[in-house]
Amino acid sequence: MITSKDNSKYKLWLKLSQKKHRLAEQLFLVEGEHLVNEAATAGVIDTLLVCEGVAFEADADAAITYLARPLFEKLASTVTTAGVMAVCRMWESHMKAHNRLLLVDDVQDPGNLGTLIRSALAFGFDGVVLSEDTVDLYNDKVVRATQGALFYLPIHRTNLTTYITQLQQAGTTVYATALTDDAKPMAEIPKQTSLAFVVGNEGAGVNKDLIAVCDGSVIIAMTEAVESLNVGVAGSILMHHFNDIG
Amino acid sequence: MITSKDNSKYKLWLKLSQKKHRLAEQLFLVEGEHLVNEAATAGVIDTLLVCEGVAFEADADAAITYLARPLFEKLASTVTTAGVMAVCRMWESHMKAHNRLLLVDDVQDPGNLGTLIRSALAFGFDGVVLSEDTVDLYNDKVVRATQGALFYLPIHRTNLTTYITQLQQAGTTVYATALTDDAKPMAEIPKQTSLAFVVGNEGAGVNKDLIAVCDGSVIIAMTEAVESLNVGVAGSILMHHFNDIG
Repeated sequence: MITSKDNSKYKLWLKLSQKKHRLAEQLFLVEGEHLVNEAATAGVIDTLLVCEGVAFEADADAAITYLARPLFEKLASTVTTAGVMAVCRMWESHMKAHNRLLLVDDVQDPGNLGTLIRSALAFGFDGVVLSEDTVDLYNDKVVRATQGALFYLPIHRTNLTTYITQLQQAGTTVYATALTDDAKPMAEIPKQTSLAFVVGNEGAGVNKDLIAVCDGSVIIAMTEAVESLNVGVAGSILMHHFNDIG
Repeated sequence: MITSKDNSKYKLWLKLSQKKHRLAEQLFLVEGEHLVNEAATAGVIDTLLVCEGVAFEADADAAITYLARPLFEKLASTVTTAGVMAVCRMWESHMKAHNRLLLVDDVQDPGNLGTLIRSALAFGFDGVVLSEDTVDLYNDKVVRATQGALFYLPIHRTNLTTYITQLQQAGTTVYATALTDDAKPMAEIPKQTSLAFVVGNEGAGVNKDLIAVCDGSVIIAMTEAVESLNVGVAGSILMHHFNDIG
């Protein structure tokens, strides 16, 4: 059991609340039994952390590191971790197919990004690609909102302008969610083999530069009383409509 | 301009961060230009608050109360209010029709409730009915996530079991979003004149007692990799499918 706040590993784990340290160490934290179990199934647990006095049935191959209660509580970002956390290794995920992709342009709200990833997995999308300025995937609120989906879905981060051009060269049609003059209602877009959709920032929408390189724009029909939908909702409605769940 | 933190009105406004005081005073706060403008259009502004030094073009009929900057900043729950807030009166909203209703059973996350209300307005629903234990509608995070939709949509709070029975007696068919044995995929449910849908708590789903009184259950098809969708997403996909936008 680790009882000293000066323990070098513990000091490193505390730093994982900051993006730059997560990147440098290629490690991030997940909290609560559900996410810890998903991380265990995915085989990415570096250290399984359990609060002193908490009974936790670990998988056979995961050694438990116990933390003194004050240390555990300081490390946890939420109150309801139920005494279990895991330090996880970041991993390289390979995109097996490119038939259904969600491209995320500068989304800032962690809950929105997590929800989009959860829906992408639910609707059989092949992967999610984040713009360079989208909120960090390993932010604790993003991880929580994915409900573990991030462990099962290839997720990359890259320059979207370049990426869209590459997709188009490989035969994928790319639509931006945007209210352009030529935007088509969702139902009018043919369900081709290979499609990608770009969702945008909560306030600004999809960047104009990106809209310009896309093959077209898609809109979801709604009443005039509302300017726009929540981005997590809009992306999920699109992914539900163009789902690939067989 | 109010400059003293001992000003009696100011002291009252500070208390509006707590649900019990909002209820007692029948007042709540909205922040930022967009929401303040929506509140003005809806005619529910009690006091328009502007931070000293901020230029704000108010509607002709709204008198501005200026607040000294430290007072304004203490009252604001977010950093990005852009110097404008409004104290709003709660109002009685009358439900004009009952053809499309969303019933919200014990949803706890403010963002999820706000998103559901925003989508309900977008998809032409006639109203939203909250269970007694659903998060407070006038919580600042709920208000923000509605993006102003709460000013345009009838929203009631009542005992859902009783309410569902009343709806059924009036000819509405009520579906719970639940994985019961007899649950039907969304696409198999006829688009009748009068439909209501119950969405449930983030962790527990729709209460069993409510599922028992509903006419049936509805599910959204998805891959087995995911246990459930975010409740804001699930409700929005349903409302999009059964929309009443003409």
